[in-house]
Amino acid sequence: MKYGLVKSDGIVDLSARHGARWPTLREVIEAGALAGLTEEAASRPADHALADIVYEIPISAPEKIICVGVNFPDRNEEYKDGQAAPPNPSLFIRFPRSFTGHDRPLIRPPESPQLDYEGEIVIVIGKGGRRIAEADALNHIAALSLCNEGTIRDWVRHAKFNVTQGKNFDATGSIGPWLVPYADESQLADIKLETRVNGEVRQSDRTSRMIFSFRKIINYISTFTTLVPGDIIVCGTPTGAGARFDPPIWLKPGDVVEVEAEGIGLLRNTIADEVQP
Amino acid sequence: MKYGLVKSDGIVDLSARHGARWPTLREVIEAGALAGLTEEAASRPADHALADIVYEIPISAPEKIICVGVNFPDRNEEYKDGQAAPPNPSLFIRFPRSFTGHDRPLIRPPESPQLDYEGEIVIVIGKGGRRIAEADALNHIAALSLCNEGTIRDWVRHAKFNVTQGKNFDATGSIGPWLVPYADESQLADIKLETRVNGEVRQSDRTSRMIFSFRKIINYISTFTTLVPGDIIVCGTPTGAGARFDPPIWLKPGDVVEVEAEGIGLLRNTIADEVQP
Repeated sequence: MKYGLVKSDGIVDLSARHGARWPTLREVIEAGALAGLTEEAASRPADHALADIVYEIPISAPEKIICVGVNFPDRNEEYKDGQAAPPNPSLFIRFPRSFTGHDRPLIRPPESPQLDYEGEIVIVIGKGGRRIAEADALNHIAALSLCNEGTIRDWVRHAKFNVTQGKNFDATGSIGPWLVPYADESQLADIKLETRVNGEVRQSDRTSRMIFSFRKIINYISTFTTLVPGDIIVCGTPTGAGARFDPPIWLKPGDVVEVEAEGIGLLRNTIADEVQP
Repeated sequence: MKYGLVKSDGIVDLSARHGARWPTLREVIEAGALAGLTEEAASRPADHALADIVYEIPISAPEKIICVGVNFPDRNEEYKDGQAAPPNPSLFIRFPRSFTGHDRPLIRPPESPQLDYEGEIVIVIGKGGRRIAEADALNHIAALSLCNEGTIRDWVRHAKFNVTQGKNFDATGSIGPWLVPYADESQLADIKLETRVNGEVRQSDRTSRMIFSFRKIINYISTFTTLVPGDIIVCGTPTGAGARFDPPIWLKPGDVVEVEAEGIGLLRNTIADEVQP
């Protein structure tokens, strides 16, 4: 596994130069070196063509991947339980192996046809901390990315409590395509987030409408757990997942799902059935 | 951080001998070397007195810690929702930093006085796999341990869905005191599991009464995620947590909680208030 800088003409290989010191982007972020490496590589020629790259999730082994549920107004109303906006964010955890990289298939398992998409913004923690104040929260972000927080819908309610199993089938989601170093609140404050299936817009909203802001999310999560560099927070999806159509429209093999956000990029995945041994 | 064999007269230091090859018990288990190291060290004299040891959780950085909720009959009835035994196990995830080791304090955070105990059996995966058959499931266990799956009760229902935050305050639970290599089903089939607070029995039940057996748990979890060596599964707690008393009895600084199971050991922790910087 390697890392590098994506440029218009290809990728500058940074692990060839820095991999001994920082084996993965997690260590790069821990060292506070993400912006510096990006600058250093900007003037170098590309080592590899983009077409030759197989993408992994940008941080392969973060200490934590924490996901925020129900974070856009209309999505709360979709639950039709008459409750006003919730007082605190619903949170669940995904394992890294539930995600694959950009341009690789999301895997529909034989256990269920109910594979669904959820386009989301990802923040990656740079500076760790506990009980981080909202006023200071954005200074703890190292980078931004995107997530297709793919879900097996019927397994989300397979048991009495908790969505764990519906959110953790191997390779049902994706993170990427890459990390964008975070420098300024304007990169997050009011950007458009859109999810398309086979070119048709299914989800479209703006981060300014999130129920829990990026500041609040960091503040709340760090109240109970110490955030560390490389931690990934997946910040919630707009209305319009396949489950909300009548009848529901599940993803099927051959479909192409794109998650796009202004200034972050475009995360694209096809769907494939799991190949059984 | 080091590992070794616990004997009546102290600990045989195994990381001094094998740490370069296998830095932690996770790598020992991955190499299938747990039983062999145990045998090898049995005839050696102790290197350290037990009193000199500061215990960590036995596997400091497992890929996953998955917890089973509501897995004893009376505990399902405690929910008083009229539902029969659930069809599938409720699952949630804890981060390693939500646990501390044996003989160290569980930390009550300033956010809530509702720190509660849950005594549970832990299985540690030896041989990984996906869709592991129930018939073969126990062959995938490398070791057993105990957990005080300490919980901040009001934060379990802090949001609309999921128990994540109430289960993940730093150092509110413990795993240990050690790993017991697994060899035979009799080590798990019908053992007594007991939790005491200041010497008073609060939880006491037998693993033969679990709603979801160890075989079923491994089978079910491996349906959606690939289990790997060192993965930790926390198998559910008997009735009698402090939340079930009227009024509830929360843990307070100075309390001593003991979780004990036949053939596995005794996990003891005191309670302390968090020291704020």
